[in-house]
Amino acid sequence: MKITANNPNRKSWLTVDKNSDFPIQNIPFGVFITKDDIITIGTRIGDFAIDLGALHQLGYFDGIPLTDDIFLQDTLNDFIADGRKTWRLVRNRIADVFDVTNGKLRDNAEHKDKIIFRMDEVEMQLPVSVGDYTDFYASKEHATNVGSLFRDPENALLPNWLHIPIGYHGRSSSIIPSGTPIRRPVGQQRPSEGSTTPNFGPSKLLDFELEMAFITTVANDLGDRIPIEDADEYIFGLVLFNDWSARDIQAWEYVPLGPFLGKNFASTISPWIVTLDALEPFRVDNPKQVHEPLPYLKKEGKDSLDINLQMAIQPEGKEETVVCNSNFKYMYWTMAQQLAHHTVNGCPVNAGDMMGSGTISGPTKDSFGSMLELTWRGQNPIKMNDGSERKFINDHDTVIMRGYSQNDEVRIGFGECTGKILPAIE
Amino acid sequence: MKITANNPNRKSWLTVDKNSDFPIQNIPFGVFITKDDIITIGTRIGDFAIDLGALHQLGYFDGIPLTDDIFLQDTLNDFIADGRKTWRLVRNRIADVFDVTNGKLRDNAEHKDKIIFRMDEVEMQLPVSVGDYTDFYASKEHATNVGSLFRDPENALLPNWLHIPIGYHGRSSSIIPSGTPIRRPVGQQRPSEGSTTPNFGPSKLLDFELEMAFITTVANDLGDRIPIEDADEYIFGLVLFNDWSARDIQAWEYVPLGPFLGKNFASTISPWIVTLDALEPFRVDNPKQVHEPLPYLKKEGKDSLDINLQMAIQPEGKEETVVCNSNFKYMYWTMAQQLAHHTVNGCPVNAGDMMGSGTISGPTKDSFGSMLELTWRGQNPIKMNDGSERKFINDHDTVIMRGYSQNDEVRIGFGECTGKILPAIE
Repeated sequence: MKITANNPNRKSWLTVDKNSDFPIQNIPFGVFITKDDIITIGTRIGDFAIDLGALHQLGYFDGIPLTDDIFLQDTLNDFIADGRKTWRLVRNRIADVFDVTNGKLRDNAEHKDKIIFRMDEVEMQLPVSVGDYTDFYASKEHATNVGSLFRDPENALLPNWLHIPIGYHGRSSSIIPSGTPIRRPVGQQRPSEGSTTPNFGPSKLLDFELEMAFITTVANDLGDRIPIEDADEYIFGLVLFNDWSARDIQAWEYVPLGPFLGKNFASTISPWIVTLDALEPFRVDNPKQVHEPLPYLKKEGKDSLDINLQMAIQPEGKEETVVCNSNFKYMYWTMAQQLAHHTVNGCPVNAGDMMGSGTISGPTKDSFGSMLELTWRGQNPIKMNDGSERKFINDHDTVIMRGYSQNDEVRIGFGECTGKILPAIE
Repeated sequence: MKITANNPNRKSWLTVDKNSDFPIQNIPFGVFITKDDIITIGTRIGDFAIDLGALHQLGYFDGIPLTDDIFLQDTLNDFIADGRKTWRLVRNRIADVFDVTNGKLRDNAEHKDKIIFRMDEVEMQLPVSVGDYTDFYASKEHATNVGSLFRDPENALLPNWLHIPIGYHGRSSSIIPSGTPIRRPVGQQRPSEGSTTPNFGPSKLLDFELEMAFITTVANDLGDRIPIEDADEYIFGLVLFNDWSARDIQAWEYVPLGPFLGKNFASTISPWIVTLDALEPFRVDNPKQVHEPLPYLKKEGKDSLDINLQMAIQPEGKEETVVCNSNFKYMYWTMAQQLAHHTVNGCPVNAGDMMGSGTISGPTKDSFGSMLELTWRGQNPIKMNDGSERKFINDHDTVIMRGYSQNDEVRIGFGECTGKILPAIE
């Protein structure tokens, strides 16, 4: 099916700023609460939130096989479970309805009143109920940096890393939408020199991790696997993802079973899921891999995406400082490889599962995706625009992640993924 | 509120075998499909399945604040979310209705027809939709054995182990009810001597892990924690848990982020959740801990449970062989300590979350809870009753876990937790 929604020449009758992340070619999906306190599934064009529940009730999706209440829900899970054909039909139809040449809704003031809101009138929610959340560890530069810092610079990359898209299970219950404040976590930390009793208290090494995550649809039953050629079919879309990390808690707890309380206090995602379809124009060549991958991980093509990613820190009441510029294309393992690997043993993947990329660090020092790497564990503090310094994240700091793809014709963005750190309760 | 359901002198008008795991003092909760293809929440007395949806519709729970459809659901999650007071009211009422002295249902043939089924007429389902699943690593003997086998016998227990109830996140989507067959997983394994390319194929070292798991109710919001004194309030009940493990896949993948595909192909639980209330008579003293726990983990009392656990292997068409006898009381870290630790950083715990104990190995060689430990990585094969030997689990073997508590007055059991291994699809 042709993705007509992606036509770069299309314009909307809704006003869209030239630099907006949300032109009519984007059509992301999210969940919001309207000023009338109704929760609904929606999309966004420019600075307008569009109520897809109302759009459906008023007949604008006629001819597309959708249940009556598919958009009148507090998560996208059921819509995602409908599969790629339905997502495409819906995105194409939305593009039609808001196309500058289409007067049907444009000229119906009563309908517009029920369907279109200003973004500042709605409150964005978590877009999916995440069933299972897996975090990968797919940036070679990040794995090398962390290996150097936590273990041994001479053998920073462990022997399995170049063969396996290493991943681990994360906690779904602490995935929160952009804007939710985060309490600084408390926990055990390594005993001080000369002591055997662990330290206990608020994390002193609170960090962000610049990641992206993809959201899947129903893919396979227990015991079945997803062939790598089919993987894209099961990827609904992507979000920005800040995988908050307490480095001191993590360092003490993580052997031998991996990170736990150092991660599961909060993980922030951006509220709009940008579809994989909308990102089609930004596919770039797969990374060159050191070893020939095993057959189940082998696929030629353009499975990487050119998405500019940025992280900024804003001290309370002060100007922000951009501390990192990275790109999703720096991932060594592609999403298709990750999905094929995740299911090679028969592990079932469901609608609303989320898979994080792991921290995406690029080759240059200003492209490292965490404070741990940017300041080299605090050795090289970052100078902020307000004159202060940061080794890690301070109380009352807001961390702001942004991401967008851009070519000569169109810009497809994610908006912001933000979180403010509140002081610990001891 | 008094747990009158636990009265050891009570008898039921339903026939219960003397050695049944399910006397009227048990009253576990599960989900089943009736012969009329209706899914419902139920309980069990002896070899009878009791439809709690029908019992509620016919008025037997009058006076207890329950929504009309609380038992007409395909998971226990909503009932669990109602909290401990409601669980107690319901269990006490069920005990009353089936008490030998109560004629109300006993003498109503029409109602009995709608409410009571033979166990062989119903099909047990997964009792909860598991939101998040955490597996702990709480048996000192197991951690010591595995540390010796995978790392270094001289430093088998890592420095953090005696201070932290070590845990990690698992996969919810592959949690399956007893009886579901398990396909032998395929995956990457360590390269052979002299090669740098990983091996790939069916796991050769497929293992069980003898565990128990507890199911929680809604406990805390993001940023809050559960004080250890309150932990019991949030534990609904327990199930038997076989955390299937592919040792060769696990050994190659697990550094540095923990087990992943070596575990998430299948995890089997027993279908009846036995309430923590029903296990009250089997509380025993907390384990003596080497170090004084940090204050948030400190609690005197009887938080351990004396539950006999057994694992047997049955080759196809042959007699089974019991390969391990262990006990839940061998856990070094209690469930209360696990819950307090899990939330100390503000991680939210919800209704239907599941927390595994980790493999429960006792002090003697026949009480080790995995083939890895029992055969010391295959060095000492187990002789089976049919004359064959086992280092790990073979295709077509059925692994059967059993568990029960018993004193002079009553036996409270879990039934069986079984799974048969099917050959891999390559």
